[in-house]
Amino acid sequence: MISFESDYTEGAHESIIRRLAETNMEQTPGYGLDHYCESAKAKIREAFAVHDADVWFLVGGTQTNSTVIASLLREYQGVVAVDTGHIGVHESGAVEYTGHKVLTLPDHGGKMDATELEAYLEAFYADGTYEHMVIPGMVYISFPTEYGTLYSKAELRSIQAVCRKYSLPLFIDGARLGYGLMSGSNDVSVKEFASLCDVFYIGGTKVGALFGEAVVFTHAAPAHFFTTIKQHGALMAKGRMLGLQFDTLFTDGLYFRIARHADEMASILKGIFLEKGYRTFIDSPTNQQFFIMTRQRAAELHAKVRFEDWCPVDEDRIAVRFVTSWATKEENVLALREII
Amino acid sequence: MISFESDYTEGAHESIIRRLAETNMEQTPGYGLDHYCESAKAKIREAFAVHDADVWFLVGGTQTNSTVIASLLREYQGVVAVDTGHIGVHESGAVEYTGHKVLTLPDHGGKMDATELEAYLEAFYADGTYEHMVIPGMVYISFPTEYGTLYSKAELRSIQAVCRKYSLPLFIDGARLGYGLMSGSNDVSVKEFASLCDVFYIGGTKVGALFGEAVVFTHAAPAHFFTTIKQHGALMAKGRMLGLQFDTLFTDGLYFRIARHADEMASILKGIFLEKGYRTFIDSPTNQQFFIMTRQRAAELHAKVRFEDWCPVDEDRIAVRFVTSWATKEENVLALREII
Amino acid sequence: MISFESDYTEGAHESIIRRLAETNMEQTPGYGLDHYCESAKAKIREAFAVHDADVWFLVGGTQTNSTVIASLLREYQGVVAVDTGHIGVHESGAVEYTGHKVLTLPDHGGKMDATELEAYLEAFYADGTYEHMVIPGMVYISFPTEYGTLYSKAELRSIQAVCRKYSLPLFIDGARLGYGLMSGSNDVSVKEFASLCDVFYIGGTKVGALFGEAVVFTHAAPAHFFTTIKQHGALMAKGRMLGLQFDTLFTDGLYFRIARHADEMASILKGIFLEKGYRTFIDSPTNQQFFIMTRQRAAELHAKVRFEDWCPVDEDRIAVRFVTSWATKEENVLALREII
Amino acid sequence: MISFESDYTEGAHESIIRRLAETNMEQTPGYGLDHYCESAKAKIREAFAVHDADVWFLVGGTQTNSTVIASLLREYQGVVAVDTGHIGVHESGAVEYTGHKVLTLPDHGGKMDATELEAYLEAFYADGTYEHMVIPGMVYISFPTEYGTLYSKAELRSIQAVCRKYSLPLFIDGARLGYGLMSGSNDVSVKEFASLCDVFYIGGTKVGALFGEAVVFTHAAPAHFFTTIKQHGALMAKGRMLGLQFDTLFTDGLYFRIARHADEMASILKGIFLEKGYRTFIDSPTNQQFFIMTRQRAAELHAKVRFEDWCPVDEDRIAVRFVTSWATKEENVLALREII
Repeated sequence: MISFESDYTEGAHESIIRRLAETNMEQTPGYGLDHYCESAKAKIREAFAVHDADVWFLVGGTQTNSTVIASLLREYQGVVAVDTGHIGVHESGAVEYTGHKVLTLPDHGGKMDATELEAYLEAFYADGTYEHMVIPGMVYISFPTEYGTLYSKAELRSIQAVCRKYSLPLFIDGARLGYGLMSGSNDVSVKEFASLCDVFYIGGTKVGALFGEAVVFTHAAPAHFFTTIKQHGALMAKGRMLGLQFDTLFTDGLYFRIARHADEMASILKGIFLEKGYRTFIDSPTNQQFFIMTRQRAAELHAKVRFEDWCPVDEDRIAVRFVTSWATKEENVLALREII
Repeated sequence: MISFESDYTEGAHESIIRRLAETNMEQTPGYGLDHYCESAKAKIREAFAVHDADVWFLVGGTQTNSTVIASLLREYQGVVAVDTGHIGVHESGAVEYTGHKVLTLPDHGGKMDATELEAYLEAFYADGTYEHMVIPGMVYISFPTEYGTLYSKAELRSIQAVCRKYSLPLFIDGARLGYGLMSGSNDVSVKEFASLCDVFYIGGTKVGALFGEAVVFTHAAPAHFFTTIKQHGALMAKGRMLGLQFDTLFTDGLYFRIARHADEMASILKGIFLEKGYRTFIDSPTNQQFFIMTRQRAAELHAKVRFEDWCPVDEDRIAVRFVTSWATKEENVLALREII
Repeated sequence: MISFESDYTEGAHESIIRRLAETNMEQTPGYGLDHYCESAKAKIREAFAVHDADVWFLVGGTQTNSTVIASLLREYQGVVAVDTGHIGVHESGAVEYTGHKVLTLPDHGGKMDATELEAYLEAFYADGTYEHMVIPGMVYISFPTEYGTLYSKAELRSIQAVCRKYSLPLFIDGARLGYGLMSGSNDVSVKEFASLCDVFYIGGTKVGALFGEAVVFTHAAPAHFFTTIKQHGALMAKGRMLGLQFDTLFTDGLYFRIARHADEMASILKGIFLEKGYRTFIDSPTNQQFFIMTRQRAAELHAKVRFEDWCPVDEDRIAVRFVTSWATKEENVLALREII
Repeated sequence: MISFESDYTEGAHESIIRRLAETNMEQTPGYGLDHYCESAKAKIREAFAVHDADVWFLVGGTQTNSTVIASLLREYQGVVAVDTGHIGVHESGAVEYTGHKVLTLPDHGGKMDATELEAYLEAFYADGTYEHMVIPGMVYISFPTEYGTLYSKAELRSIQAVCRKYSLPLFIDGARLGYGLMSGSNDVSVKEFASLCDVFYIGGTKVGALFGEAVVFTHAAPAHFFTTIKQHGALMAKGRMLGLQFDTLFTDGLYFRIARHADEMASILKGIFLEKGYRTFIDSPTNQQFFIMTRQRAAELHAKVRFEDWCPVDEDRIAVRFVTSWATKEENVLALREII
């Protein structure tokens, strides 16, 4: 059955598989101290124009979020995120498990509003009892968001300005970064993205890799970040598996090329749904698309195509999610015309 | 340069690479809910004759140790291990990071002594102030140990008996399990191994896989272990990567075959060292071999072959470690005759 | 200046001070193993008609909340509370610091709604992704709430019924328990209170003691709760200070008598405010009273009497809090007639 | 029965009780923001000649240790202590509960050896795998130690020099600080004590107070230490109870006077034991005295006087502990002549 269930249903881009095979019996040092990791880091620095950045490779998204957040916070601090932020919902409390509260602001289509962030911080420090509360220690946003939406450059700059005013590091969860940066609606160039935050990660798992997320500290990583990674159980013995994958993805722009493909497929997919009279639940310009349909219609469609029920809309209707990826075939998208 | 530096210098057994390639574009559900994981679990249950066991796949050893240990302990409990146990030394405090103390007993060639364990537990509960101390909540041992040594079946039974007497789960770290079980000196059969403990893991990373450890709860996993894995950042989105690797390793006994090869290579290697007049630092019957040599000799050898300096023995001499693996070529072992 | 700032501005009821002095040079064993603690526990069991209850003494409220909550939850679980619950706001993230998320429901005048609790739990387990979220492990409510409001017996029974349905322990924060139980609006008798939950604590700090909270597990405390207390840094060396205070408070109904006094003072105070044309912000039947006034009026009053600005109501007006206690003198309440 | 069981069997020095009574109905702000705390801090700064020190009051020793240690360490760091250090033995894993390992060195009569500390740190950073281990982040010692022994000024300076070389804060647990400073064998003056470390605490619980420990950061406390205290459940609502006690103890040298009394009583006590032919287990110059006797003799004595069995010495003999305190009466010490 054709599937638009998620962007992690297949393995990896074929060139990754090929290189894994080609280099398989090579002997390298462990823990990311190999030449593939070095090469991948150099290519990432080049691609994002951050020549002094400190780049590290971890295995998965939840792991990356909790490791990076714990490394940036002091014990009395929490991380500010919107209520739909992945760290506060679908990560089984991994951040709290490291001792830190997720401090939530309302989301707007999955996004944080800079004005609301500033108002929260102002009110926080104006409150005479603030020392009895969790001190905000950093800000977490996702690009694209959990709803596929994007911050404009101006929006990111506004959030960054508030963060700087309050000396809060800004961390961008880029589990689907490629799909954000390559969207036709995005006005942030790859070369300027890194300048808009203090740390971000480049999602590999959902964008062509078997697994892996590349964390980019745009200035420098916290001291002893290697040890922090190990302490979080996030250090791969055969670290080159991560280096080799990111080296491949950042050779000749592969990462961005395959991400753009997914966005194009999503655009065609959305067009078909709109043609057929469906309405979007949220207007996403990236690889996750959300539509409204009756529960009955959704039930019927589940027999023909794989997708996810997202949330109830009202008594009769729900929102559903269709996801494209680097691996989506155009013929499968077009086949939706007959199916939906 | 020929390397005996560690057992995680190469990629994976070729049949794993082949199957990764063959199945690459298949679409499967995430998080280990795929048919490869199911198949691998069935094969592991069969191989270890534990038909009711609960099997889970994690990515790496430190991650597996801290996740399993945290899942079995209550907050006021610690884990008992010998002072050379991996969890207390080279895991960057991952266990303490989850709030639990590692309670140490002296090691004997890397092994725990059942009598000493019992004496510790007796003395603990005889001490009127024990409620002011960390309560022992489980026992952790490694098979083989960090020094390559093995417990005999009788020794394991003695430890298990003490654990049962005090209602402590016994957890065996099997990062190199294959190398232990296939050793000529081992008297524990694969079919009876599981009956000697409450939970163990089958190391994949060091025995033929790209990465991956299979945790086997011989009775049942703790409630909500899936959520615990996620909370520890240890849940792979493309979980089938783990299933597929273990399915391959446990098809036609591949795991045990390649492990036996490593042990045989180690045996030849040890013979060559002994022939040349070196003495062992610890007499290991598995794939890690430890020899004593002068610092100067070690320095000279480092120019010709890769291995690890282990620890000082006296002013002049150190212990060194040579490791074989599933990937070791006999010709490279034999080449040592000319080198050492 | 007359103060209605909080219920912890004075020391302790004079009979406590007297007994501290009288018993000062007595020698007793430490850590709560003394006869005062035993006697106090017996009197508490008697007062609340819970003859099998397990009673423990801790020092302060935040400490009690985080210790009790951590003792009841497994690592993958969180505690459900309303968004105004003390544990989620003014405890500096003490619960998260022990690794657990506070899962919030909307409050209704500080109270949790049983129907909303049930709806949340139903929706949680109906969500196919629930294993990626924090599992609800217990329910926390306050009696009276942080707004001075009270649950009716029927409301408590409804919440308890939902908790039982989902096997969730129900924990009642009784930092101001006396003021709740003695309120004229309260329909829960002291003898039946304990039957409505699994664990609660009797606040001493705010109701006549120098410090101290008595935790009552209505069935049995979690195993090794003594060690948990010590681990949380919550074990008093001279534990008899706690026992002696609670023994005094629960002799001849002192605790309830002084609590009733505070409620009566609050009632007179409220009457004066209403007479003077002020409106309540929340209609509290206990010792915390909340009124609405202009910012200017509040500023003027701060020069004459101590109280707390609570929160903004609109551009011009704020809510203020006036608190009575066991130590409030009627003449000071009556003096408000001239002041406000 | 006469008791030498511990130094926390009585209440508090009578002048503390008197002032508690006198000031009982005074209204003060909570959380240590009152004038008693201010006054006590000023007197402590004066007594220890640390005019810029940051002083905080906590309730008990274990709480103080885990709060101070957690506030000084980053998550990847551990605290170095000797194996008999209180934090590693009798605090129920409170330090590990906050995520940090206690890294142990051998003790010498309860003391850390500066040379061994330096050797450990040198070896640690010389080990190529140190990033896989817990990074030492601070040093913890006790003055006097858990065995009643004292560091000389030269020994403290040596430890401090090593700490400075490795940029490790030095924390001195002073649960019995008075008994150390007032010992006839002590060569560290009160005025210079603070200059020998970065943070220490002045034990009140065991030296004349009902409870309370005064933490002195000789330079400045970590940022947001108030919030850290609250997060650890260590913030007293009626904080003035702590201020008032320390204010009393540091008025007219009361703290030191009553501590000296205990040491004198210990000296007489030791003399009596030696006269009677007993041998010391450890030669302590402070208020804890350790003697060797047969198990049978100890059992007989338990019928006549209260003391603690400390540890086995050999098959027949054990070490026992007799403790004096600020409250010990000379007649009771002299009575031992007839008893032992």
